Amino acid sequence: MQLKTTHLYREIYEQPAVLGRFLRQERATMQQLAQAVRARGVSHVVIAARGTSDNAARYAKYVLGAMNGLPVALAAPSLFSIYKRPPRFGKALVLGISQSGKSPDIVAVLAEARRQGAVTAVITNIPGSDLAQQGDFVIPLHAGEELAVAATKTYTSQLAAIALLGAALADNDAMMSALQQIPDHMNQTLNAGSAIGRLVERYRYMRACVVIGRGYNYATAFELALKMKELTYTMVEPYSSADFMHGPLALVEQAFPAIVVAPSGVMLPEMQAFIQTLNERGAEAIVISDNEQVLGMGRTPLRLETAVPEWLSPLTAILPGQMFAMHLAFTRGYDVDAPRGIKKVTETR
Amino acid sequence: MQLKTTHLYREIYEQPAVLGRFLRQERATMQQLAQAVRARGVSHVVIAARGTSDNAARYAKYVLGAMNGLPVALAAPSLFSIYKRPPRFGKALVLGISQSGKSPDIVAVLAEARRQGAVTAVITNIPGSDLAQQGDFVIPLHAGEELAVAATKTYTSQLAAIALLGAALADNDAMMSALQQIPDHMNQTLNAGSAIGRLVERYRYMRACVVIGRGYNYATAFELALKMKELTYTMVEPYSSADFMHGPLALVEQAFPAIVVAPSGVMLPEMQAFIQTLNERGAEAIVISDNEQVLGMGRTPLRLETAVPEWLSPLTAILPGQMFAMHLAFTRGYDVDAPRGIKKVTETR
Repeated sequence: MQLKTTHLYREIYEQPAVLGRFLRQERATMQQLAQAVRARGVSHVVIAARGTSDNAARYAKYVLGAMNGLPVALAAPSLFSIYKRPPRFGKALVLGISQSGKSPDIVAVLAEARRQGAVTAVITNIPGSDLAQQGDFVIPLHAGEELAVAATKTYTSQLAAIALLGAALADNDAMMSALQQIPDHMNQTLNAGSAIGRLVERYRYMRACVVIGRGYNYATAFELALKMKELTYTMVEPYSSADFMHGPLALVEQAFPAIVVAPSGVMLPEMQAFIQTLNERGAEAIVISDNEQVLGMGRTPLRLETAVPEWLSPLTAILPGQMFAMHLAFTRGYDVDAPRGIKKVTETR
Repeated sequence: MQLKTTHLYREIYEQPAVLGRFLRQERATMQQLAQAVRARGVSHVVIAARGTSDNAARYAKYVLGAMNGLPVALAAPSLFSIYKRPPRFGKALVLGISQSGKSPDIVAVLAEARRQGAVTAVITNIPGSDLAQQGDFVIPLHAGEELAVAATKTYTSQLAAIALLGAALADNDAMMSALQQIPDHMNQTLNAGSAIGRLVERYRYMRACVVIGRGYNYATAFELALKMKELTYTMVEPYSSADFMHGPLALVEQAFPAIVVAPSGVMLPEMQAFIQTLNERGAEAIVISDNEQVLGMGRTPLRLETAVPEWLSPLTAILPGQMFAMHLAFTRGYDVDAPRGIKKVTETR
């Protein structure tokens, strides 16, 4: 099988076009949502999501927190679906994020939010889904059908939805225009991605690793770890660098592989210090960065071709990760479109 | 070295006494905190914590959500300490949880909360710590000095603090009296724990596994995974059963080991179904339960000697896990008191 004929390959490379389409079509709806949030005096945000969508929710925690001053809580769906003891939403915006819009536990959170009279919004690829029915506002991802089981284009499109919400709530033209430029930045990093096909050879027999990101790219660490698990069946655990120091650092032994997400920004010195700690302990750092010096600190560089504003960096920083996971799976002879044991739509209660 | 002379062993077995002491001494303070929460019209809770304390925060999400209707958000400390763009706390109770009370990023969250005029409370083993200075209310853990690097008695004492807060907020005598009985239940499971010393032999060369818990015991899965990493250097990843189905299920191959936390309660059928899925795929389940039928579904039973109300089950369900991690580390010849590469107090910014 040719890698280039797989759904996964096509969907990874389709991302800039999906994003452009999404940003053109959903700006108006997002401004209406922002208006409702202001009018209703929303004090905090609760997000219900699973899997890849839950990683997009982690991004929301930083964007809406830093840009809009809104604390974000990730919902505990079992309080709704299994224990049937839902918390009071009060003046929350309740956001459901799901590619398929089908998982009953996520639908249960939004249905209860609506029953309590909270503002509800749904970010989904399927605007006619059960979940979308529960949204006062529905934001379609415009990603087209996603055929690979591992989500890629719907993930970056979910990130863009959250960035767009942040910009709309801040009513900030500079943010909006920075976001519009992201598809071009994505194209540049994707076009240089073929080099990753050779770099992965070294990791053919890697059984386990960690992915480290913090702040805006905490989400990137989680999403890359999930792609690695789904596509390459490697035991990969995501961490913030701070959480990793509080215990799991004990795992590090000679040659222990760690992927570090380190794009330019306020967080970069923290990530540099972390790579330094890894190096001192003889671990092997795989570095995602646009900064040459930081790339040079690791054993294997995964280069971002351009620098983007830090709050938008998760949209580009995930790309070398997606490609790394895809190429590693391919070199291991795995089916990149249909990983063993999982289906595209997972319904949990 | 004798296992019984280690700090870790003594501290694990000290837990019922610590808990009894804590519950006798802190009930009044907790009732004052509950009164302040009611008087100030608190609408949600934000918790700042790292490592083991963060796992206690995960428990709070379910207890305060289900018992008190309060949504709980875990703070993103880097928004305060690194990005310096803190969200608005509004009518939140802001809770800091830390054994040492020293980590600067956690202190930064509480300091900002106080600046904004939110109700603040600190759960710590060191009532004179920097963190405690920022609390309107300080709840000492009464655990005595914790000498082993891996936290055990301060974890269960933090869980008890959260359970006590839930009972005080609900003003519910039945909850309070159920909590008082937990030290006795803990003693029974600890006293039967020596059997675990033999069971761990089978896992001498296990390199990786997952720990699954959901609802109240989502926290247990995270804390057990952390103990396993700290003490046995095994790659152990925690999941809710629902999150695990959304992707990571692809990891499961023949003989894949999974520890499942399955005490009696509303969540038990979900856990049973999950063990069934593991069995069908040829995985190996290690089951923590008080239910004989469920214990029988796994390859290795880690028995809870008594059933307790589900909302309190994390206080007993972690015990066989702590003992499993301790015995496994010991059988591998590791220093259970001072794991490689980590210190007791970790200060992250």
